[in-house]
Amino acid sequence: MTDVQRRPGGRSSRVRAQVLDATVTLVARHGVAGLRYDEVAELAGVNRASVYRRWPRRDALISEALADLADREAPIGDTGDLRADLVEFLVTLAASQSSPLGRALAGVLHTAGSSPDVRRVVQAFYERRTGTLHRRITRAVDRGELPPVDAHLLADLLAGPVHLHATHDTGAFTPTDATRIVDIVLAGIRVTGDQRP
Amino acid sequence: MTDVQRRPGGRSSRVRAQVLDATVTLVARHGVAGLRYDEVAELAGVNRASVYRRWPRRDALISEALADLADREAPIGDTGDLRADLVEFLVTLAASQSSPLGRALAGVLHTAGSSPDVRRVVQAFYERRTGTLHRRITRAVDRGELPPVDAHLLADLLAGPVHLHATHDTGAFTPTDATRIVDIVLAGIRVTGDQRP
Repeated sequence: MTDVQRRPGGRSSRVRAQVLDATVTLVARHGVAGLRYDEVAELAGVNRASVYRRWPRRDALISEALADLADREAPIGDTGDLRADLVEFLVTLAASQSSPLGRALAGVLHTAGSSPDVRRVVQAFYERRTGTLHRRITRAVDRGELPPVDAHLLADLLAGPVHLHATHDTGAFTPTDATRIVDIVLAGIRVTGDQRP
Repeated sequence: MTDVQRRPGGRSSRVRAQVLDATVTLVARHGVAGLRYDEVAELAGVNRASVYRRWPRRDALISEALADLADREAPIGDTGDLRADLVEFLVTLAASQSSPLGRALAGVLHTAGSSPDVRRVVQAFYERRTGTLHRRITRAVDRGELPPVDAHLLADLLAGPVHLHATHDTGAFTPTDATRIVDIVLAGIRVTGDQRP
């Protein structure tokens, strides 16, 4: 969750930003289930009642905080070099998934007691991230850098091994790891041709 | 977790089998953290004290139950047709990961409060499963069905998308999905050549 950009705005939006930042920090620290309004208010330096007033529902607060974060995250690059852009994306993805926040969010999807509403919020966060990868793949197809391909399948082939790596704690994920994955998957797509559903 | 085989043995090993089966069933139902000895004893039809005596530590009980399950699971096939064997393995893996037990085990790795001992137990279970895939890949290389390849990387490329699919609840994982993944990854490996570390 690096390379976040500053948000513009006045006093009200500054308060909003402080509350959303505090929410993300506390979710990373204690998990989604451990988020407490009094801690959010204290860390944000605002009144607890005003947090409740603006975000009466926990799910809505977490959802807005994650959407805000996803929007500020560095999007996938488009340097014209598909291979380099994908390698960089996978390295960033690995770092994000093995961060405290990344682990807390993954926990939501795997914990039996998670509320369906919170699961939906986390799914939406993942989809927002994956959406940028889909769009980069679609542009590569439009430009003829890739044969027509199911962007969803290609995204799973690239992100799946990164995800597995983060889950199983098998040491640092390096640019060399990313390059080998990208090279094998792109070569496989080019050889097998049209893989649209 | 299908295709389990019957275990041989006398009365003592029958009791052991009943306790281990009950443990797996209850972990699937309530998660690792929710496993209770009195429920294990009741479901297994044995005395609670005898469960405690034989497995004084929860971690050891869960560990033994999972190792027993992994040993009885159908190993990856070796029909001589690498592509078909891998497709079948991925379909079985997807079913196993989206089962209640599979979800409960994944939860252990993603839940902040999981005990390190239980995490190790679950890691060992995954490694036992992945080990069969590694050995099948190594045999394929030995027979010249594949160029020399890092079996660990190839296993991640194949299992990663399956894992992602199960995590994100994106509908049923079909043999067609498995075939597309296997075809792209094997083609990519053959084109890029020697990928040993």
